[in-house]
Amino acid sequence: MSVLVVGSIALDDIETPFGKREGILGGSASYFSIAASNFTGVKIVAVVGEDFPDDHLKMFESYNINLHGVKKAQGKTFRWQGRYGYDLNEPLTLGTYLNVFETFDPVIPDDYSQEDYVFLANIDPELQLNVLDQVKAPKVVALDTMNYWIENKPLELKKVLERVNVLIVNDSETRELAKEPRITRAARIVMDMGPEVLIVKRGEYGALLFSRDGIFWAPSYPLEEVVDPTGAGDSFAGGFMGYIAGNEIQDIVGFKKAVVHGSVIASFTVEDFSVDRLVLLKKEEIETRYQAFLKLSNLD
Amino acid sequence: MSVLVVGSIALDDIETPFGKREGILGGSASYFSIAASNFTGVKIVAVVGEDFPDDHLKMFESYNINLHGVKKAQGKTFRWQGRYGYDLNEPLTLGTYLNVFETFDPVIPDDYSQEDYVFLANIDPELQLNVLDQVKAPKVVALDTMNYWIENKPLELKKVLERVNVLIVNDSETRELAKEPRITRAARIVMDMGPEVLIVKRGEYGALLFSRDGIFWAPSYPLEEVVDPTGAGDSFAGGFMGYIAGNEIQDIVGFKKAVVHGSVIASFTVEDFSVDRLVLLKKEEIETRYQAFLKLSNLD
Repeated sequence: MSVLVVGSIALDDIETPFGKREGILGGSASYFSIAASNFTGVKIVAVVGEDFPDDHLKMFESYNINLHGVKKAQGKTFRWQGRYGYDLNEPLTLGTYLNVFETFDPVIPDDYSQEDYVFLANIDPELQLNVLDQVKAPKVVALDTMNYWIENKPLELKKVLERVNVLIVNDSETRELAKEPRITRAARIVMDMGPEVLIVKRGEYGALLFSRDGIFWAPSYPLEEVVDPTGAGDSFAGGFMGYIAGNEIQDIVGFKKAVVHGSVIASFTVEDFSVDRLVLLKKEEIETRYQAFLKLSNLD
Repeated sequence: MSVLVVGSIALDDIETPFGKREGILGGSASYFSIAASNFTGVKIVAVVGEDFPDDHLKMFESYNINLHGVKKAQGKTFRWQGRYGYDLNEPLTLGTYLNVFETFDPVIPDDYSQEDYVFLANIDPELQLNVLDQVKAPKVVALDTMNYWIENKPLELKKVLERVNVLIVNDSETRELAKEPRITRAARIVMDMGPEVLIVKRGEYGALLFSRDGIFWAPSYPLEEVVDPTGAGDSFAGGFMGYIAGNEIQDIVGFKKAVVHGSVIASFTVEDFSVDRLVLLKKEEIETRYQAFLKLSNLD
């Protein structure tokens, strides 16, 4: 089974303590789709500008990523400029230029509308609802969002939450959405809004998976090389949803394994700028690191 | 085998979103010793003032904690005043009154000098060196320190690090001590300074144990009830060292189990103010939560 992603494709200018890059491939749908392509075929719905390099499009296609839903619009591609300090956690945003993304109105092509696995990356909840109205009967819908939408479109966000199976957010988003500082209580409140599964991303501290079966803690491998954290969250989501779609996962043990695979893929993403590490990734490397992740929390 | 702790006994004024307490029992040696007493006998070296309630001393003794090394000095007991916000992570220090702790000069009684297991809580590295000169041939010496000593007594701290087996610090202390932001590299640099084992405490995100055998990640149970985080780190150290001393641990699997026991004890400490939850703790509760911790990162 393939997975459908609706999100952004961007050109980023990034500065970290380890280097500086201009106009590199970025955006939630880019990271997600290359991450997911390790496990399954991917279909993207996104928009790019006239300046978007054809080489990137060819690269996507070479990873079994269907671009039928990617529209080329008049104007420039969405651009984000960010700088990371030594703690490598929160970036300082130096500039956000929505460009063609400003009028993004996702249209799901007919040949995408039967998809069973759907990921709604972090965009306006109204657009996310719009997408859900265009897909027939998906088995697993996962959603990302952010504080901005929690604060500015709470009603639309609640409507879309009622229709998703998996919510993938970070600690502070979970707490803010629930209006409750204690994470386990917050998780219960958020799950009452709709999602059967809540995944709380904690960056270098791993991820928590909440479900009716309890809590699972996926560690994040303490990395030697962190060059650029951009795209870690979207790669996590891509590894997670790709694994679920590729293996048609329905049970909780499968979901746990999918979370660990998400962490594994994200741990590669941050080793280089843009998707530079991801595009070199081999099946054996994923398996080796997956085993290392499991060993990390093993007593024996 | 019992464990020797050198640290502070304090009376704290604490405010959290869940309440306010004045003059409650605090200090590193207090939390450490009650935590450790779940697994072994404890000997404290510390100083209290004339205002220190006899009831607290009797309470310690009822937990098999030897107070022979606790000196009553003229003046008032060390007092810390702190306030926690909703994130419950870093407290705001409202006041620190060293009082009798200002001239604390730890003297190890003769009947303490043969101890095999020693914990040097977070005090001036010069005093920590002083203590090490007074103990004969300890098997395991563990040490806590903080950014203040890393910045202000780097030479003394390095001298004491050469003589300890286990360093227990947090993320930022590890990075600052190593002058290296990447935690795995920082860990190697710190271990080259002396300790064979480095434990990096990460609060609600668990703890990492670094040793020659690799990395172990102990999760921290996502808590429903966090009332007062004060003393979590010292309780962690107490659970860890108490478990090691009580079971005469020498192997790495034992150290891993000790880290999980440290996390377990700390998870109880934060459920109430002061040592109020710790003094009620039952063996079965420890075992039940220990199993829950292990289950947390279990795939099946």
